[in-house]
Amino acid sequence: MRMAIDQESSVPIYQQIVDYFSHAILSGHFETELRLPSIRKLSSDLGVSKITVENAYARLEAEGLVGSRVGSGTFVLPIYDTQLIDGAEESPTWPVWQQQPITSFQRTVLENAYPLAGASIGAQDTINFSSGIGDPNLFPVNDFGRVMQRIIRRDGVEGLSYGEFNGYLPLRRTICQIMASNGMAISSDNILITTGSQQAISLVAQALLKNGDNVIVEKTTYNGALGLFEALHINPIGIAVDDQGMCVEQLEPLLQTYHPKLIYTIPTFQNPSGVCMNGSRRRMLVELSRRYNVPILEDDYIGDLRYEGVALPPLKSIDTAGNVIYVSTFSKILMPDLRIGFLAAMGPIYDRLVSLKCLNDLATPNLSQRSLNAYLSVGSYQSHLRKLTRIYKKRRDVMVGAITKYLGSQVEFQIPQGGLFLWLSLKRPLPAEELFKRCFEEGVSYVPGNRYLIDKSDYEHNLRLNFAYQPEEAIYKGIERIGKVLGSF
Amino acid sequence: MRMAIDQESSVPIYQQIVDYFSHAILSGHFETELRLPSIRKLSSDLGVSKITVENAYARLEAEGLVGSRVGSGTFVLPIYDTQLIDGAEESPTWPVWQQQPITSFQRTVLENAYPLAGASIGAQDTINFSSGIGDPNLFPVNDFGRVMQRIIRRDGVEGLSYGEFNGYLPLRRTICQIMASNGMAISSDNILITTGSQQAISLVAQALLKNGDNVIVEKTTYNGALGLFEALHINPIGIAVDDQGMCVEQLEPLLQTYHPKLIYTIPTFQNPSGVCMNGSRRRMLVELSRRYNVPILEDDYIGDLRYEGVALPPLKSIDTAGNVIYVSTFSKILMPDLRIGFLAAMGPIYDRLVSLKCLNDLATPNLSQRSLNAYLSVGSYQSHLRKLTRIYKKRRDVMVGAITKYLGSQVEFQIPQGGLFLWLSLKRPLPAEELFKRCFEEGVSYVPGNRYLIDKSDYEHNLRLNFAYQPEEAIYKGIERIGKVLGSF
Repeated sequence: MRMAIDQESSVPIYQQIVDYFSHAILSGHFETELRLPSIRKLSSDLGVSKITVENAYARLEAEGLVGSRVGSGTFVLPIYDTQLIDGAEESPTWPVWQQQPITSFQRTVLENAYPLAGASIGAQDTINFSSGIGDPNLFPVNDFGRVMQRIIRRDGVEGLSYGEFNGYLPLRRTICQIMASNGMAISSDNILITTGSQQAISLVAQALLKNGDNVIVEKTTYNGALGLFEALHINPIGIAVDDQGMCVEQLEPLLQTYHPKLIYTIPTFQNPSGVCMNGSRRRMLVELSRRYNVPILEDDYIGDLRYEGVALPPLKSIDTAGNVIYVSTFSKILMPDLRIGFLAAMGPIYDRLVSLKCLNDLATPNLSQRSLNAYLSVGSYQSHLRKLTRIYKKRRDVMVGAITKYLGSQVEFQIPQGGLFLWLSLKRPLPAEELFKRCFEEGVSYVPGNRYLIDKSDYEHNLRLNFAYQPEEAIYKGIERIGKVLGSF
Repeated sequence: MRMAIDQESSVPIYQQIVDYFSHAILSGHFETELRLPSIRKLSSDLGVSKITVENAYARLEAEGLVGSRVGSGTFVLPIYDTQLIDGAEESPTWPVWQQQPITSFQRTVLENAYPLAGASIGAQDTINFSSGIGDPNLFPVNDFGRVMQRIIRRDGVEGLSYGEFNGYLPLRRTICQIMASNGMAISSDNILITTGSQQAISLVAQALLKNGDNVIVEKTTYNGALGLFEALHINPIGIAVDDQGMCVEQLEPLLQTYHPKLIYTIPTFQNPSGVCMNGSRRRMLVELSRRYNVPILEDDYIGDLRYEGVALPPLKSIDTAGNVIYVSTFSKILMPDLRIGFLAAMGPIYDRLVSLKCLNDLATPNLSQRSLNAYLSVGSYQSHLRKLTRIYKKRRDVMVGAITKYLGSQVEFQIPQGGLFLWLSLKRPLPAEELFKRCFEEGVSYVPGNRYLIDKSDYEHNLRLNFAYQPEEAIYKGIERIGKVLGSF
């Protein structure tokens, strides 16, 4: 027990002990039945006499806050609600250093986090098109649970100690095999395991960007990256996206004008637009990066989840000079709670990223890494991927059909060839907050398109709809509900 | 299969496929027995004719790189070592943006990570006084494994989905109980679960510090914090430490001169010195923080592990104005691989820290949080803590005895009242690298004291010795070995 006792205070020590426990109990921090330390223990911890503690406990008992039972010590008694101290009353004026305002994307992050976390548990009937992940009911939870149990038995203490800071070597080797099958020849010494791809992006930003720097991003892009740049005081410079991905033809003047320190791109199944950058733009982008000495951060968060069409090479497979840092994750295909992503980088930047990983959170849990490697090694990943591809393709088609039926002439969209998201464009813009609120009341959620814009608009042109998250009937019903709301504007 | 095929290249497509596979096989990225995609699959993925792929595979077979088996496809054949491409030959000149030098603490981080990771596995006989953690053989691995299995069965998909961004509510409540028993009345709405205390420190740095800012630190302090500040271009301003902790009497002129944006301190069992800040300095520090509007980051990484003496109140328990951000971890008492730490912050800074946590790595794994909470709830933590206290106290006494016997008049030290580390001072300084190397050759490792200094010295005054990591006989033998090396200088 560490308690702030002031030996020099004019308040007697027994009274300080009484005050501390009274406050802890009446503010609800000490719950009913919590056992207070024994008199002997507390007097030894605080370096005060036993009599002092005895007097304090006797006073607390007289006030009805605690009771004692022979042989089992002193316990907190039930407290009436009316006795409880209202926390709001005592909230102080916060110090000046605390008064820096929160940034707008940070606010968005919090808004996204809380209501949705609540909604997905609370309202049973709400149809969720807003998720950023696949269908949780398709996570290989049982397979994974079994693997984890096996690893705990097999590896014991070693599996639960700190491992290598750049990640568990067998897992890095397995990742190299997966990358090789996607055209990227990378050694395990160039792979860094991260806490999801979000951490990989964060590490690259910390390594390459200082406040005030510029970074090129697709004009609508992943809000987790935009929020990060904003929090680090980095300026995003937007470049247009069409149905063939980033308009790389417009890049050169931006490089000349803004001298960006990084190009952040999602070339395959771009988030939120769902488009893929075509092959010639990919080559041009890598070439411009080399010529202008600007690194590329390639976010390939879901490139493996393709339903049709020709597979396009990752930028990393074209890069021979070490200009592309490649980032991917197992969160989307397997399960988010694994929190395992990775990056691949050649050259001296690799060591800097490893040291930053270490300075950010020391290491990614060894147990998760070992379990993931065991799971991947037996070929379960490929068969799981095939299963998801089959199911999600069908759900996409259902959503496309429902949109055509219920939203028809009011919207435009491209059919995404892969990934999780359909990017719906409204032909006439609507007030963003009002539309979102009305849809939510109607029992359907999505992510408002303005959350992916550098300069957020008050008007809504786009809705990002996750078609993979739930079964076909729910998709159908959800689109019908959106149609009902759109019809009322 | 995503492979970079250039339709407009003068190199025929079949040749591009041959080149890709040859390179992947000869550079060792495709290992023996790896199965190539089927002809049908590859032609569909690449959008080329089956004949093209057939020709490419026939050529690879003719070159002896792959073989085919009826009904089971095409496989990589064993390759002779002499055929392998030497990776070194093709390492390019790295782009200019990669040529920024790594900082000295980042280098230390990498040096610490790699050789020690190797040594602890490799040399069976090396006695490890360099670890930053307790004895891995005392981790409650089996108890924890059982809890984890139970949680997987109990919570299924929900336990493996994203949870609340600030952490699993029941765990935050349990942490409040632990904090209350240490004199801190905090609500669960002010607790943020982090990936170890390292991440908590990193988030606070990101929220409060910009490059060029000054931060007050104890003159010798945790190198993971120093490395982080250096990587973020923050200037540490050192303040002296004596046997009563930070010399707070010297703080005011530093606050007036350097206008620091943060005071980082480890008041209890300071790392590396092992000392505790006395009560009146604690009060003075909190008061100066309030008066000068400078937040305090209190790193209480092992405050619960006390072997004797009076428990001192955390700074957070004295702070009523919201100036202290409190950070702690379960890595040291339970097991490091849990990667669960937490911070407690009052006021608007809390929301900013939550959003930064989300932008850094989205969330701490739900499964680990739920398992930890189940483990803590049944009182296992307190009994585990009592067990560790008993064992580590004995090991500390053994080390003190061995130092007195073998190092005697050459060194000075304070007996630490808790924690993991004994901070040994050499009466005459010795060359740091040479001393470390000679000890390592003699079969004993420690952390050179200069790694905790802001301005590293070439000479060694101090050795940080972990007395908790291994059994008593090893401690005795290790100190004897250090004595042998010291005697040879």
